[in-house]
Amino acid sequence: MSSTFNEFYHKKTGLTVGVEKVLFSEQSTYQKVKVLKTDTWGNLMTIDGMVMLSEKDEFVYHEMLSHVPLFSHPDPRRILIIGGGDGGTAREVMLHPSVQKVDLVEIDETVVRASKQFLPKVGDWNNHKLNVIIGDGITYVQEITESYDVILIDGSDPTGPAAGLFEKDFLQACYDGLAEDGILAAQTESPWVEHYHPSMKDVFTALDELYEVSKMYLAYIPLYPAGMWSFGFASKGPDPLSDFTKQHVEKRLPKLGRKLKYYNAAVHSGSFGLPNFVKGIIK
Amino acid sequence: MSSTFNEFYHKKTGLTVGVEKVLFSEQSTYQKVKVLKTDTWGNLMTIDGMVMLSEKDEFVYHEMLSHVPLFSHPDPRRILIIGGGDGGTAREVMLHPSVQKVDLVEIDETVVRASKQFLPKVGDWNNHKLNVIIGDGITYVQEITESYDVILIDGSDPTGPAAGLFEKDFLQACYDGLAEDGILAAQTESPWVEHYHPSMKDVFTALDELYEVSKMYLAYIPLYPAGMWSFGFASKGPDPLSDFTKQHVEKRLPKLGRKLKYYNAAVHSGSFGLPNFVKGIIK
Repeated sequence: MSSTFNEFYHKKTGLTVGVEKVLFSEQSTYQKVKVLKTDTWGNLMTIDGMVMLSEKDEFVYHEMLSHVPLFSHPDPRRILIIGGGDGGTAREVMLHPSVQKVDLVEIDETVVRASKQFLPKVGDWNNHKLNVIIGDGITYVQEITESYDVILIDGSDPTGPAAGLFEKDFLQACYDGLAEDGILAAQTESPWVEHYHPSMKDVFTALDELYEVSKMYLAYIPLYPAGMWSFGFASKGPDPLSDFTKQHVEKRLPKLGRKLKYYNAAVHSGSFGLPNFVKGIIK
Repeated sequence: MSSTFNEFYHKKTGLTVGVEKVLFSEQSTYQKVKVLKTDTWGNLMTIDGMVMLSEKDEFVYHEMLSHVPLFSHPDPRRILIIGGGDGGTAREVMLHPSVQKVDLVEIDETVVRASKQFLPKVGDWNNHKLNVIIGDGITYVQEITESYDVILIDGSDPTGPAAGLFEKDFLQACYDGLAEDGILAAQTESPWVEHYHPSMKDVFTALDELYEVSKMYLAYIPLYPAGMWSFGFASKGPDPLSDFTKQHVEKRLPKLGRKLKYYNAAVHSGSFGLPNFVKGIIK
């Protein structure tokens, strides 16, 4: 029997999706993980009632979290992903020929298991570059011994197990775990969800204090609150809007070996064009 | 008693908004016009069950439909708005000191009446530059005698009375009604709503055939399907991405007399950075 899934981000306002069947539902140690077969978006994963990804729209989030920082780096080889247990961010990262190894640290094995079974096209799990570690990303980052070129924070909202990913100590530990020219990118919530504005401001204030370069960029994600999603970019030097980055994109984008569905050179630079009300949130 | 409003753009998938009260509901000659008091967005107008605007998010649509074409024009004086009966587009247009006269041709007086009463801050109805005409925009454009610098198509979806606003004959009549350097801008639906793709492709094919310059641009509109909205830009010469336009924005934006909430120079150029899947729709 069909029903609907709702995610309300303010009172009774939000997203509704038609659900044909519940494919997976499990309370893990950390959170409630579900996969729904939907009427529009293919299979869709929720965590604690919040949409994480669907088969049909996941390309936007994963391409934008990956390619914006990776093309801004002169030669990204070693990549760390914190969270990202659905495998989509790693899949995009591993398209870059320069990438030699991706360490993916996901706290919840349930997310990986459900993704492998019900979102099988999202992850590139058999890729020899991929090293999956089930563990706490915050502890992992504090104990980094060999530094990374790019760290991607692919966690859920700043409630539950992902709350620490928005804190200054963690962002400092990431800085310390980055090599020269190192870049961090992180998902940083929807500018239209007012109760996340304090977290967003804190993150960008911390990035600004800790990193040589810090900026916000945006992407259109239809299943996230209000369809507008923000990301934080921070680095030890590389500027995503520099002529160097433009040259990297021009030279390296044709070598990815697969056509992308969202990212291109104009999207890269355009995504940093922030509406005035968005700038106001993090000023 | 509170309830919810749903706009489903595919099966049971779409937007849900909490409704505190129905403020206005009238079947006009053309369509069903409602204004709802909502839990999140202030007062919200729907036409035939589709969201037109809310008090809280209307700035995005109105700023982007107006300022992108107006700043691309060297000296916009005479402006025609087809539709736009809520008054928001005219309000933004009239901020430009060069604008001398705005003819607003709205087919449905019910929209104007409901907007004046329940969305009173959206329109700048007493501005001496504004000339409101209740009539058929398609007929009006065919009979233009004195040409316009900018024509803005601010209609509803390509069903019902607005269907003709997406047709080639109409876009040709707009071309004929534009002065030298004339610019047309139009709302052209959400790239995520697949049943509108044929209309979108037709519009952009026609603009490409009829006009010297034609491009699509995008804005984040939280209450429109999937939060992503497209606009068509077409002109007899001016290029929205030229250095001339950049100079216009730099010189004229500070003279608008009001701070904008969405539009700025980076948003202007960034909005033309189309994701690959969006380019695919109109190719």
